[in-house]
Amino acid sequence: MVDVAVLGATGYTGMELIRLLHGHPEVRLSFLSSESSAGLSLAQVHPQFLKLVEQVLQPLEVEAIPETVKLVFCALPHGSSAKVVPALLSRSLRVVDLSADFRLKDASLYDRWYNRSCPAPELLPEAVYGLPELYAGPIAAARLVANPGCFPTSVLLALAPLARAGLVDWETVIIDSKTGVSGAGRSPKQEFHFPECTENFKAYRVARHQHTPEMEQELSRLAGEQVRVTFTPHLAPMSRGILSTIYLKLKPRERRSLEELYALYREFYRSCPFIRLLPEQQLPETRRVRCSNYCDLSLRLDERTGRIIVLSAIDNLTKGASGQAIQNMNIMLGFPETMGLNFSSGL
Amino acid sequence: MVDVAVLGATGYTGMELIRLLHGHPEVRLSFLSSESSAGLSLAQVHPQFLKLVEQVLQPLEVEAIPETVKLVFCALPHGSSAKVVPALLSRSLRVVDLSADFRLKDASLYDRWYNRSCPAPELLPEAVYGLPELYAGPIAAARLVANPGCFPTSVLLALAPLARAGLVDWETVIIDSKTGVSGAGRSPKQEFHFPECTENFKAYRVARHQHTPEMEQELSRLAGEQVRVTFTPHLAPMSRGILSTIYLKLKPRERRSLEELYALYREFYRSCPFIRLLPEQQLPETRRVRCSNYCDLSLRLDERTGRIIVLSAIDNLTKGASGQAIQNMNIMLGFPETMGLNFSSGL
Amino acid sequence: MVDVAVLGATGYTGMELIRLLHGHPEVRLSFLSSESSAGLSLAQVHPQFLKLVEQVLQPLEVEAIPETVKLVFCALPHGSSAKVVPALLSRSLRVVDLSADFRLKDASLYDRWYNRSCPAPELLPEAVYGLPELYAGPIAAARLVANPGCFPTSVLLALAPLARAGLVDWETVIIDSKTGVSGAGRSPKQEFHFPECTENFKAYRVARHQHTPEMEQELSRLAGEQVRVTFTPHLAPMSRGILSTIYLKLKPRERRSLEELYALYREFYRSCPFIRLLPEQQLPETRRVRCSNYCDLSLRLDERTGRIIVLSAIDNLTKGASGQAIQNMNIMLGFPETMGLNFSSGL
Amino acid sequence: MVDVAVLGATGYTGMELIRLLHGHPEVRLSFLSSESSAGLSLAQVHPQFLKLVEQVLQPLEVEAIPETVKLVFCALPHGSSAKVVPALLSRSLRVVDLSADFRLKDASLYDRWYNRSCPAPELLPEAVYGLPELYAGPIAAARLVANPGCFPTSVLLALAPLARAGLVDWETVIIDSKTGVSGAGRSPKQEFHFPECTENFKAYRVARHQHTPEMEQELSRLAGEQVRVTFTPHLAPMSRGILSTIYLKLKPRERRSLEELYALYREFYRSCPFIRLLPEQQLPETRRVRCSNYCDLSLRLDERTGRIIVLSAIDNLTKGASGQAIQNMNIMLGFPETMGLNFSSGL
Repeated sequence: MVDVAVLGATGYTGMELIRLLHGHPEVRLSFLSSESSAGLSLAQVHPQFLKLVEQVLQPLEVEAIPETVKLVFCALPHGSSAKVVPALLSRSLRVVDLSADFRLKDASLYDRWYNRSCPAPELLPEAVYGLPELYAGPIAAARLVANPGCFPTSVLLALAPLARAGLVDWETVIIDSKTGVSGAGRSPKQEFHFPECTENFKAYRVARHQHTPEMEQELSRLAGEQVRVTFTPHLAPMSRGILSTIYLKLKPRERRSLEELYALYREFYRSCPFIRLLPEQQLPETRRVRCSNYCDLSLRLDERTGRIIVLSAIDNLTKGASGQAIQNMNIMLGFPETMGLNFSSGL
Repeated sequence: MVDVAVLGATGYTGMELIRLLHGHPEVRLSFLSSESSAGLSLAQVHPQFLKLVEQVLQPLEVEAIPETVKLVFCALPHGSSAKVVPALLSRSLRVVDLSADFRLKDASLYDRWYNRSCPAPELLPEAVYGLPELYAGPIAAARLVANPGCFPTSVLLALAPLARAGLVDWETVIIDSKTGVSGAGRSPKQEFHFPECTENFKAYRVARHQHTPEMEQELSRLAGEQVRVTFTPHLAPMSRGILSTIYLKLKPRERRSLEELYALYREFYRSCPFIRLLPEQQLPETRRVRCSNYCDLSLRLDERTGRIIVLSAIDNLTKGASGQAIQNMNIMLGFPETMGLNFSSGL
Repeated sequence: MVDVAVLGATGYTGMELIRLLHGHPEVRLSFLSSESSAGLSLAQVHPQFLKLVEQVLQPLEVEAIPETVKLVFCALPHGSSAKVVPALLSRSLRVVDLSADFRLKDASLYDRWYNRSCPAPELLPEAVYGLPELYAGPIAAARLVANPGCFPTSVLLALAPLARAGLVDWETVIIDSKTGVSGAGRSPKQEFHFPECTENFKAYRVARHQHTPEMEQELSRLAGEQVRVTFTPHLAPMSRGILSTIYLKLKPRERRSLEELYALYREFYRSCPFIRLLPEQQLPETRRVRCSNYCDLSLRLDERTGRIIVLSAIDNLTKGASGQAIQNMNIMLGFPETMGLNFSSGL
Repeated sequence: MVDVAVLGATGYTGMELIRLLHGHPEVRLSFLSSESSAGLSLAQVHPQFLKLVEQVLQPLEVEAIPETVKLVFCALPHGSSAKVVPALLSRSLRVVDLSADFRLKDASLYDRWYNRSCPAPELLPEAVYGLPELYAGPIAAARLVANPGCFPTSVLLALAPLARAGLVDWETVIIDSKTGVSGAGRSPKQEFHFPECTENFKAYRVARHQHTPEMEQELSRLAGEQVRVTFTPHLAPMSRGILSTIYLKLKPRERRSLEELYALYREFYRSCPFIRLLPEQQLPETRRVRCSNYCDLSLRLDERTGRIIVLSAIDNLTKGASGQAIQNMNIMLGFPETMGLNFSSGL
């Protein structure tokens, strides 16, 4: 058994980490912090954990983390994470960070898209981008893993095979994503008030969402060329799930049949346990991955316009955040990649 | 007072016609037909009409329509409509048809996209495409109005100003639409069973939805050139509403600022009472148009990729079907265009 | 045309008042106040009113209400209403107040159940309880109408015929009500945050909800005896609607068949246009009254236990608040009771 | 590892059994039957099982069940189950049956409440009612366990401590339950069509639901006297969950403080791992038990009327069906009661 800590235990990604870690056979939750609820038990804040996880929440003090802890999950708000991570690393703790603080290699992009100064630029070179389907090797050896954003996860998994094969005409790429409301976090706000959210569908931050540079950084790396995409997120009246619909054309002289595309994806994800390339007649649906760590993928060819359409579905809190963080932990600690994560969504 | 008839009164578009016509100050509902529920009162089938519309539903027999009726709304399934419309016209009745049977001018497109033979090709030349913002003149004089599909309504209103100005590079146009479940009609099916629909988001009929040729026909007519688009519909876990997110680039040498684009739209829709070009800082939300006849529009410029994004929101059963049908009736009968339709959505 | 004012125009009951008053043929909205959004137009705050109601919101100053105004709707929070109503009355304005400030005749009940001191006890004798099905006469003559709470409306309409007939064994009465989330108002709170509300059902304030004494006051008045009830409200994952399920036994020697009970209700509500006693085989559903002013009622007899079950459905914002307020206005101003309110719910 | 079979694998309770059994460390799914989908793999019918459970579904033939199988879950429709269970027992298979066919000890009650003849009355004496919190001993030894209905589970767990203590005045008991739509099963029907279910709340089968005699049978057994209750089920716009609100008075001379009641419950459920008596200031919410096997309980005292209110929340498909069936299996096979079931709901 390995001892781990969760910082920011009462937010949605913290809750989901604890739900999943509780079922992990090789891990012991030995420290949970919460700024807002320190002194209460987790079950007092979130009664679904009664009889399961009743530990008392601690104030966020790095020294208070027990000596036995080997790995820390930071589920803190953007900006707060970078304040605590250096102290964690200096205590020789390994860190999976779920914030955006270490995802962008170019600090100036952080400044621009997050409207604040990048809080710990000196750690950016070391941080490993934690998408296990692409970077399992570096993740295994990493001290600091930057867990990807929810939208980038859904998009990168959908595009990686085509990107790495050098097939995409990047001028043509459009990403239209739809997310459930839990992606906005746990703090109540007017636009997430139930009566204003149910029976409603809308776009937001059109062409200016902060996950855009993260997608572009990773797509550029895969493609070996500078990539720009148009990205539009939408809010759907559901709690969990992201569906991304991605439109693109192949490079001028490239042509692929739908069968060839499926074969390319099948080969690329051959050894990736959480990628499910659906049978050709099926399309992804968010409920099929709800509360699970799978990413479901389909491809379509619009023969009339020569366009390829890639569709992906994930749960934003699981594969899009906490499930992926545990997948990273499994790799870092030498556990089987699927340990504690091999279950299906319910109805 | 003008007498009207509704054929197919118990389906969702029929219900919505009756809800709206009941509040219309110059119209009397004098004949309601229903194949499945003939002999029952409308309120027995749909108790929300108790004390409001309690007429008995009639079998669908053209001869039974009272002499006083001037205009008939056909809210019948595709294929059934074309069987009854010729008899209506030969009785000198004017018709607003809500099916797809008369929308496509090229019968071979109907054959291909609807997987059956176009049922009344001889009437296609006469039928007027009932989008009042574009064709008020012909609608006023028409015997037979083909009421547009819900997705085409949301798309054509979003693109018409750019299309008619000849600005669009049609190779680049992608239409990503999201609809509520009432668009699928009233018959229960596995995929619309509540537990399989709630907390779920998915695409369907990707690049092969039957509304595609309808959009292309009308966009081609507006643009004066042959147009092809990529269109993907999605199903959102809500009852009513369509949000369309449309991506495009202008023709190679065209450039417009966002202000110029807003000005173009403002001018184009100057005298259109149901088009609401939102203030620049706002974006359409389906709940703002729920149960109302408005179409809300916004424009965005993705300066990094040179792409324009047009967003539109309508209620699929109102502006996308029955409200628009009544708007057409108002024009045909010389009533003010907004009569019976000038109300807002509720919360 | 009569000029009216709405104080508190941007909350949910204010919004609903404006939606309905905009469609009223004899009323002109001539003053809208909002503390939080003064200076903005209503449509800036609630874009569904674009092109419909674009007036500028005013600060809440009684002197600023135009001379032409005859009647004021107070849609202010509990406590705030009582601060402004005396000034309105002294300007000879007639008032329909939607808060709880004037509903209870016994000020000490207000103190106890609302946890604060009754703000204007001197006006309680004059205030008329605005349930038009029971008190149309006094309402017609009233200066100050206290519009009933949403739960009491659903309960009193369900029980009034039995109560006035003196048939009820009040010891046995249990009221189990279920409401949509809009009943909680427009301010975002943790428990009404979309992800914590959707796919959730719960009871709240069990046996201590502040609408209890209001129900008891009016039931006691109807029954001519002191009445106590057990009342439990529940929160359902929907925006609008209240369903109340009410259990009771008749007095020891009373016995009525289901037919006799239906006959009693039919007679009692003979001239009440918004009460729909459903056909015996049907049961109320909240969607049948959504956004409408109807109250749907059914009765059932549990022959095995000798219990009567009365079920009622209303829309909490319409018949449970703003629609009823307009019904009161119609009576006060001599308009037909249904004017501006005779429409059905949509799908 | 023990081999088990699931008959009726594609319905909602079958799906939930497989979801849970897949995560059970001591069980192997070795036979799955489906009449409607035999020959397909489970993952073709329910893609959420891709990469997890891809077995081929078999026709329902008892002889085809492998010799190694020790225990069979029957998740067949009422009536179908009784046709196959005798053959299973004669093959010495132990059975947990999720239908209603073996729950009622008095066959005439089945006839009356299910409107058909009890299909296997000869097995009723042997069948053990599978509520583990009450009957763990007989369950451990049973050949045939009749898994309780979802509503009875939520009600019996709420009332058992009071019933067995002989405290309840049964004349006063009223049960008002609210369920999610998955309780109605997987077959699409008009009333469960998404647009007619969302934003809707209603009662159904008032005072005549077929779970009533099951509750009464078990309450009578607990109380040692003949018990009659009034039971009203309601349909809430959510997929999963049951909340039961139960009203009662104690016997004339009995009086208990709220603290005494909590103590009684705490003692009664001392060794029951899935019963969570909530802290006094909390109330059950269905989302806290969603997809989990817990039953959350609270008590309230309405001091003004002398009534006790018991509230319980379960997931209808887990503790109300398939989770409880596995809990029974654990007891029958000598596994720890919580094996494979000790996880919390997600957000």
